Amino acid sequence: MAAAPLVVSVPENDYAEALDDLDGVETVVWDMAAPHPRGAEIRLAVMPYMTRLSLADVAVGLDALEVVQLQSAGYEQFLPDVPDGVTLCNAAGVHDASTAELALALTLASIREIPKFVVSQASSTWEPLVLRSALADSRVLVVGYGQIGRAVARRFAPFEVTLTAVASRARDGDELVPHVHGIDELPELLPHHDVVVVIVPLTDATRDLFDADTLSRMPDGALLVNVARGPVVDTDALVTECAAGRLRAALDVTEPEPLPADHPLWTTPGVLITPHIGGATQAMRPRATALVRRQVEAMLAGEAPVNAVATGGAAAG
Amino acid sequence: MAAAPLVVSVPENDYAEALDDLDGVETVVWDMAAPHPRGAEIRLAVMPYMTRLSLADVAVGLDALEVVQLQSAGYEQFLPDVPDGVTLCNAAGVHDASTAELALALTLASIREIPKFVVSQASSTWEPLVLRSALADSRVLVVGYGQIGRAVARRFAPFEVTLTAVASRARDGDELVPHVHGIDELPELLPHHDVVVVIVPLTDATRDLFDADTLSRMPDGALLVNVARGPVVDTDALVTECAAGRLRAALDVTEPEPLPADHPLWTTPGVLITPHIGGATQAMRPRATALVRRQVEAMLAGEAPVNAVATGGAAAG
Repeated sequence: MAAAPLVVSVPENDYAEALDDLDGVETVVWDMAAPHPRGAEIRLAVMPYMTRLSLADVAVGLDALEVVQLQSAGYEQFLPDVPDGVTLCNAAGVHDASTAELALALTLASIREIPKFVVSQASSTWEPLVLRSALADSRVLVVGYGQIGRAVARRFAPFEVTLTAVASRARDGDELVPHVHGIDELPELLPHHDVVVVIVPLTDATRDLFDADTLSRMPDGALLVNVARGPVVDTDALVTECAAGRLRAALDVTEPEPLPADHPLWTTPGVLITPHIGGATQAMRPRATALVRRQVEAMLAGEAPVNAVATGGAAAG
Repeated sequence: MAAAPLVVSVPENDYAEALDDLDGVETVVWDMAAPHPRGAEIRLAVMPYMTRLSLADVAVGLDALEVVQLQSAGYEQFLPDVPDGVTLCNAAGVHDASTAELALALTLASIREIPKFVVSQASSTWEPLVLRSALADSRVLVVGYGQIGRAVARRFAPFEVTLTAVASRARDGDELVPHVHGIDELPELLPHHDVVVVIVPLTDATRDLFDADTLSRMPDGALLVNVARGPVVDTDALVTECAAGRLRAALDVTEPEPLPADHPLWTTPGVLITPHIGGATQAMRPRATALVRRQVEAMLAGEAPVNAVATGGAAAG
């Protein structure tokens, strides 16, 4: 008698195709909107991308569940509901390229005044020649130096900038920065940087990290780029600094989100907003399907799950 | 008796300051709008940036002139009027960082839909979640692989793209591309590239290089980025391709330039226009003054001028 197949639920057919050639795997496409008839057999459940589903609802009746695979790097909202004995895995790596390139897109668009030229183009206006700002020679601070932070730094490196990195704890540097500073050094680093890119996970320690006091330490004209999570920045304090013309901001994430139509951030001068598009690109597909495949291969081989961030019933990782 | 000082004219005081500490140099600030009283003594004349002055007018009465230093990389319009025995030097290197970073800014802004989000922001609209395009995994073709072309390639390299380079003649590659293709291979390369960055000098060989036939070889949805010179692209043909929704374009240079208010390019869908801002940034100043200083040092040492591109009375280089 053959061993029972590993039953895997995936949110879209793309993922099923990427697992097609693996022996011993049975894939069901399940968007999790309603219970699946084979729910009790599912051992690996792949969540839809940017879902508002709660694990408490999804896991009902999933009696064989071993691993939940998220499609996002962030996992804070799932932590309270991981079922006992089930391992929660995030999508670290899947969105690195897409998010890091958006950090550069936002930085370059802001510094090279693309929003202004879009408006000029709409009125068929050729702006006069003046010496404008450039990224070159800027001092760039990357706050959050995990996988995406390094992907951000790697993309900034050839732009003739000075790069500084901050992580939760100080440590040795790499080929991009000679040293990684600890987050406690942030207040003394900020006055010396023209561009600050925020790519920290949202935790109790990073919530409101950029409050009025922190923002006040950035030099006049500096640019804050947030590709992390909205609550890492105190929105009201940022509006105040930008409205005064003291700082500029380029934000892929906001607090609240979606940003309501009557929110003052929309019309604050020097602020560029994109609607949380960092990871949501075509670049995600091949990387996400490859991760799910690696996860399935690990389970088939009886190995520990990849990208595990927490196990239900244990302390969160 | 001390040797006569080397008289240098510079267009702005910044340059004079950068030469302040050199012995044997006398600097005059001259914007070239009218003859300078000491014109007959000037041996090195530094032209203003993005000037419409003609060398034929400027050189009148400059009896001691040996070297003309341009502030632009392009020099095509000066070639016909270089006085006999005078060496024309361009500003190769001065605008590399600024122009190359604009190529990335235009590419990323177009691909990550910044112009669309600027318009959405103006109406306080949070666009819905869909999988959008990314630069990652794109096939990028850099057409023109001189100093700026390499600076462009260096900045694209960390974005998880495939890089291909084309120069006037095929040659060995470098750390960025395994091989540099010759311009004769352009027609067969174009169908296989999603992003085409044009950074060739304007010559008889490159005028209208991107005509209707060349553009037709680009795949559907491909992006043409022009940071070279407007006449390298056939504007009418580009408008036709973009208006049909077949190609997209991001242009820092146009033909004609400035683009008249009633020109159809302004309102063609999928076209992003910046008003020839590539090299005109603060990043230019330290690089331009450093080049003028190197030029002065070469003349003081009796060495050949740096960045020489032509000598009057000889065949253009």
